[in-house]
Amino acid sequence: MATAEELKRRVRELENELIKCKQRRSSEEQVHARAKIEKMSAEVVDSNPYSRLMALKRMGIVDNYEKIRSFAVAVVGVGGVGSVTAEMLTRCGIGKLLLFDYDKVELANMNRLFFQPHQAGLSKVEAAENTLRLILVTTDLFLSSLCSHLPFICDFSNGGLEEGKPVDLVLSCVDNFEARMAINTACNELGQVWMESGVSENAVSGHIQLIIPGETACFACAPPLVVAASIDEKTLKKDGVCAASLPTTMGVVAGILVQNVLKYLLGFGSVSYYLGYNAMQDFFPTMAMKANPQCDDQHCRRQQEEYKSKVTEHPKQEAVEEEVVVVVHEENEWGIEVVSEVTEAELQAASGPEPDLPEGITVAYTIPEKEETSGQTVEETDQSLEDLMAQMRKM
Amino acid sequence: MATAEELKRRVRELENELIKCKQRRSSEEQVHARAKIEKMSAEVVDSNPYSRLMALKRMGIVDNYEKIRSFAVAVVGVGGVGSVTAEMLTRCGIGKLLLFDYDKVELANMNRLFFQPHQAGLSKVEAAENTLRLILVTTDLFLSSLCSHLPFICDFSNGGLEEGKPVDLVLSCVDNFEARMAINTACNELGQVWMESGVSENAVSGHIQLIIPGETACFACAPPLVVAASIDEKTLKKDGVCAASLPTTMGVVAGILVQNVLKYLLGFGSVSYYLGYNAMQDFFPTMAMKANPQCDDQHCRRQQEEYKSKVTEHPKQEAVEEEVVVVVHEENEWGIEVVSEVTEAELQAASGPEPDLPEGITVAYTIPEKEETSGQTVEETDQSLEDLMAQMRKM
Repeated sequence: MATAEELKRRVRELENELIKCKQRRSSEEQVHARAKIEKMSAEVVDSNPYSRLMALKRMGIVDNYEKIRSFAVAVVGVGGVGSVTAEMLTRCGIGKLLLFDYDKVELANMNRLFFQPHQAGLSKVEAAENTLRLILVTTDLFLSSLCSHLPFICDFSNGGLEEGKPVDLVLSCVDNFEARMAINTACNELGQVWMESGVSENAVSGHIQLIIPGETACFACAPPLVVAASIDEKTLKKDGVCAASLPTTMGVVAGILVQNVLKYLLGFGSVSYYLGYNAMQDFFPTMAMKANPQCDDQHCRRQQEEYKSKVTEHPKQEAVEEEVVVVVHEENEWGIEVVSEVTEAELQAASGPEPDLPEGITVAYTIPEKEETSGQTVEETDQSLEDLMAQMRKM
Repeated sequence: MATAEELKRRVRELENELIKCKQRRSSEEQVHARAKIEKMSAEVVDSNPYSRLMALKRMGIVDNYEKIRSFAVAVVGVGGVGSVTAEMLTRCGIGKLLLFDYDKVELANMNRLFFQPHQAGLSKVEAAENTLRLILVTTDLFLSSLCSHLPFICDFSNGGLEEGKPVDLVLSCVDNFEARMAINTACNELGQVWMESGVSENAVSGHIQLIIPGETACFACAPPLVVAASIDEKTLKKDGVCAASLPTTMGVVAGILVQNVLKYLLGFGSVSYYLGYNAMQDFFPTMAMKANPQCDDQHCRRQQEEYKSKVTEHPKQEAVEEEVVVVVHEENEWGIEVVSEVTEAELQAASGPEPDLPEGITVAYTIPEKEETSGQTVEETDQSLEDLMAQMRKM
């Protein structure tokens, strides 16, 4: 039989142990939430999360890497591409991220990077915020975890780092035509620069595209390369059919997307207007598309007019136009031309076997009609046979 | 003053509370560890982690996706490329992963994907295992977390899924010349197929390469494209100089590496012998290199002899040789030729500004000497001027 003294000692012991247990749990939960770091240091020590980024200055790649902290980027769609995009931007030290998605994490998403099985059931935005807050040590990050449906007008035009200023860039990482068109409409209305990304339904091709309203083709100016038309895309899954996906293709598309973002925001290298990725043949087509004067979107046509008068009024700005590598011919209905010189047969081979897709689904990089991708445009170039001969002699 | 009865009740209460607290901590630690799933289901439901991978069969891309579970892959180097490589393979459902690294996670690694700040101080292999075990739901994964220095002979030749069988593929994701040469030596001795990967010191280019001992150039046959020579690489950091790195470039390199692994193991698309990535210009050179009969490595020369007699003895196997797109000329000292037709000026432009590197460091894709990359080899092709003219007429 324990004495009162022994019982009191036992109570004190247990109380201490319980406090310790609760403290451990609490610290395990809290140790992961990182505080914002005020200054990007270039010091080369193992404890500095910025040393490898700041080294880009010493290597002569980027003039002012710290500028990354002054930019706000909106990521619409936090799935296989958007989540990795958000993580890359966070680890690069982007100033502010705005994430948009209305979907939940499912076990069926586990064949892509970023989300983990224990997050199944959480909203994608909430799960992404939890993970990004763990990494925050490398960045001065603000997450605006808006669970929003369309439209985005207000969020894009007020989401900048400064109160009431627009975001610096919008990234479309959505998986359906409707959402892309909604982003396109909002960006055309605002004159907001954005980048589009996509991965094909058969998981083996993807692309990124830079859209500057009024200057380059918008999403309504040119037919999309990955499209589901004339059916409700949301019903696809219910029919026992789902799109294939791979962490590899989505990782590559997120990588080339964020690389393009860094080049665009920090001003180094060549920003790509369109970069495709065909995994079957390791084929990476590039191209540029001019805005279509007959675009269905009235705001696109207005932006084109404004851009034209801007260039006319301020001739110095013509330099901007020159930077846009427009290789499009007026005769070409859609203004599409692949810059890489590939034959139709090569392109056909590169698109892999024709998958068995549900009605209305078209895979990226297949050739819908002969006219669009034939090499005819080469005949229309300024290059003469003499020039070509001269080039060959130099080889 | 509490009575003995009250004290006893308090002890029981505290004991219960403590048990609950400990159980909660334990379940929080354990809830994330996933059990192996026996069968890959193709059912299209949100709870099936395989549905999007198995859809590759329905899409006509892969004949037998489940075969992924029969392969063992060794990943040497679990840094910026290796960690993402391991995660992608895990999420794709690879049968077995062997991870090798002797380094620790540092905060200075946080500008790349995968590792998180709270893992700083853990060995990279241990931290990777912790994270991969959370994801294991999508795969039948065995981790052989060997913390090993060189050589790897024993691990490669016994690491297969079946007892005493070799691994199916070795992936080099290391960051230094010495480790690459050690992997090369081991694979030449064993006749082990492997893939090499690398990212340049200025963070804006990288490459992957498939090496089949005896058939294609090994790492000693041809000069490496990213190399630190004549200095101890480990001392670099101490001089206040470190390599730059970006999550984008490393994500793209891991993505094209694992895509090549999937194509090689599952037999779809074209496996690349060499694929480069220049982020400054979004330029992706491909090439193939024949083994060098004068290679310094005696085991490489032996593998070349064995390959030659195999082809002679079993003429049917010549088909294998035909698959190897060898575009190399005997006159070319290093057997290097870029298949993509790029001019020297384009290549120079694509390599970006010359970075200020420590002595002995050379960046990938810069042109060390005019002879190696000039277009001279085109003159030596069988293609006549008539053929070229005919091609031009067809354009």
